[in-house]
Amino acid sequence: MRIARIATADGPRSVLADGPDWIEIADPFAGTLRPTGPRHPAATATLLAPARPLVVLGMAHNGAPGDRDRPRQAFLKSPRTVVGPGDSIVVDDDLGQINVECELAVVIRRPCRHLTADQVPDAILGFTVGNDVTAVDQIALDEKLTQAKNGDGFTPLGPWIETDLDSSDVAMSVRINGRTVASASTRQLAWDITEQLVYLTRYLPLGPGDVVLTGAPGTFHPVKPGDLVEVALGGIGSLANPVVSRPRTG
Amino acid sequence: MRIARIATADGPRSVLADGPDWIEIADPFAGTLRPTGPRHPAATATLLAPARPLVVLGMAHNGAPGDRDRPRQAFLKSPRTVVGPGDSIVVDDDLGQINVECELAVVIRRPCRHLTADQVPDAILGFTVGNDVTAVDQIALDEKLTQAKNGDGFTPLGPWIETDLDSSDVAMSVRINGRTVASASTRQLAWDITEQLVYLTRYLPLGPGDVVLTGAPGTFHPVKPGDLVEVALGGIGSLANPVVSRPRTG
Repeated sequence: MRIARIATADGPRSVLADGPDWIEIADPFAGTLRPTGPRHPAATATLLAPARPLVVLGMAHNGAPGDRDRPRQAFLKSPRTVVGPGDSIVVDDDLGQINVECELAVVIRRPCRHLTADQVPDAILGFTVGNDVTAVDQIALDEKLTQAKNGDGFTPLGPWIETDLDSSDVAMSVRINGRTVASASTRQLAWDITEQLVYLTRYLPLGPGDVVLTGAPGTFHPVKPGDLVEVALGGIGSLANPVVSRPRTG
Repeated sequence: MRIARIATADGPRSVLADGPDWIEIADPFAGTLRPTGPRHPAATATLLAPARPLVVLGMAHNGAPGDRDRPRQAFLKSPRTVVGPGDSIVVDDDLGQINVECELAVVIRRPCRHLTADQVPDAILGFTVGNDVTAVDQIALDEKLTQAKNGDGFTPLGPWIETDLDSSDVAMSVRINGRTVASASTRQLAWDITEQLVYLTRYLPLGPGDVVLTGAPGTFHPVKPGDLVEVALGGIGSLANPVVSRPRTG
């Protein structure tokens, strides 16, 4: 099933794909998704970020050869960085080089803590495409990544959540201005989705709508203002966002 | 003025101190606070965490001699760590040593980005007491602090927000089981509140209810399950939380 959030005249609504339409649902985190009536033609609907997380986590060094020999490590991103399809990635012109990163994003379904491997599937609502935008020159200045990872629009998510997906071998790609510049598969991740969620929930609680960006196995590329970025995952879809500039202000 | 959140039969409500009562208000972030009628005797009200942040930031190394000679640095905490007065700090028994830290917590009033020093006062709703609980043995294992800072109940906030406070010289103290174990003043912070908010909003957006934990100038102390922790700030009040154990589960 596909779950999305769309803009309507009455405000944002959670919806489920049903043929050519999106149909509104009461609660995307319910065990059984209950349509509440109103339908919206998918062709003209405005998609929003499909999740509204309180917690956004990224996995550090999780896609290069040798990463499995290093301790697992994660970082928090501000949920205020989350934007949806078509929204702008805003780059301050004193941040240095900006990279985009195509990642499989896990959306959490229920409160969870100290998950065991067999509890992980029930804790996941589904998967969406995540773009973990990173001001890479800031990493050397701030190893905690606060300066590198939290600009406006630095976590595009979308276009929707796919609930039925085998996360073990998902095709990943980055296109800049229509040209494919990187491609890989989630099988290249050093630590898989289950291992990541067991690790993370050992140290912190997660809850409905929270998002884990699971790592970029080579699926990153520099961008500059004026670029159009498309990050895509097989079995889900493509997420496009423009990069725009904000002049230095202070 | 004092702004709090309390539990009522109709759910959590924002309230303003008025003599012996709390009086409900529509919007704690409005320019003018508008009472909506219902009153609750302060003596019997149940206080909740006074803010519901999307973003919780802590300032790293901001209270020891020499810290001003180091670059400013901040870390994100999960907003799911926020709890209120009387709530438990839950310690997993495999985390190692746990410290509590008494800090002045800034509560943000409005969306803000790239603040200049003169814009800072208008961006602040007020101040509350923050306890930045930290599993200090995890820091050597994970310099990003994700493992150290994000356990259940690891960010007690309260008892309320004081809107009229000179933040430059606030008395700070930590009491464990009734005994004062640390005391200091916010004048010992390496970077003051204004400098911190100018720095932080250069790199990320903040919004209503977000919280900045501004640093612990020696106001930290180890705790263990069974302890009662009270962190207090002059001109605001005291925030008490018990430390409880959760046995190893995996």
